[in-house]
Amino acid sequence: MVATPVQRNVESASARYAASFDKGHLALPPSKKYLVLTCMDARIDPAQAFGIELGDAHVIRNAGASAVDALRSVIISQQLLGTEEIVLVKHTGCGMLTFKNADAYQIVRERLGEAAHAELQERKLDFLPFPELEKAVADDVDFLKQSRLVPDSIAISGWVYEVETGQTRRVV
Amino acid sequence: MVATPVQRNVESASARYAASFDKGHLALPPSKKYLVLTCMDARIDPAQAFGIELGDAHVIRNAGASAVDALRSVIISQQLLGTEEIVLVKHTGCGMLTFKNADAYQIVRERLGEAAHAELQERKLDFLPFPELEKAVADDVDFLKQSRLVPDSIAISGWVYEVETGQTRRVV
Repeated sequence: MVATPVQRNVESASARYAASFDKGHLALPPSKKYLVLTCMDARIDPAQAFGIELGDAHVIRNAGASAVDALRSVIISQQLLGTEEIVLVKHTGCGMLTFKNADAYQIVRERLGEAAHAELQERKLDFLPFPELEKAVADDVDFLKQSRLVPDSIAISGWVYEVETGQTRRVV
Repeated sequence: MVATPVQRNVESASARYAASFDKGHLALPPSKKYLVLTCMDARIDPAQAFGIELGDAHVIRNAGASAVDALRSVIISQQLLGTEEIVLVKHTGCGMLTFKNADAYQIVRERLGEAAHAELQERKLDFLPFPELEKAVADDVDFLKQSRLVPDSIAISGWVYEVETGQTRRVV
């Protein structure tokens, strides 16, 4: 296999990381019994910004830190792996604030063609954008609190990470 | 709001991180134009293990590093934010190797009751477990390569991270 620069970087990073790795004993269930749900945004390092040590917590990341999109993973985390708390963090400057579903559908049609656009329609794919950041945090926390699949015993907090300052502040 | 120990930890980690933060200038699109898709497992630190500097790459994480589950985020990453390569990493000791959909449905019924179980059925929720690790990596890479929503120009590689050794090795 010919390696791209990105793939060569994974290989060299892995060699460095493994050389001083001493955490091979960690158990599968998160030791601090919580999960963090945040955005895939390249400017977020959850371990550093939110204080997660290796083995502490599940970290779920998707476009926009969507709780709807994360539900499958949340259920597995809680019901199969024993987590009891959710820390949900969206962030300033999120790409999900910049478009609507119709825009994304149109971009896919223009760039990938009619067959790709038809597949979006078949899948009824909702890109889950949101127009207002703090309201989206509150709405997602509400969604989790209302879901019968997330028991009332689970503590849920909602936060905003500021990509400009590196700070994380609580919203709900 | 009364803070749990986990919430207090986010606050203190944030204060430390923000105090020395100097990356407020980073742009929204990932500077190295790739995305990493990996598992939510608590034993994985993608930035360290896979060599991702802040701002380099999108990081998508879900239960099992499922490409099917990640499709919405993958399309946004590529079509709206310009990424051109996918690094997909599953890992040894994954929880998704340990159960089947019927098991998860039964656990939800026992622990959360009939209403929760009915909601799983309404949503037709597929937990996307897999019985064999390296085959699951290859299957997910194939799913992405076959999808009309992922153009042929996107480079896709599949890897296994070893939670025992800290090493990441290429599968496909």
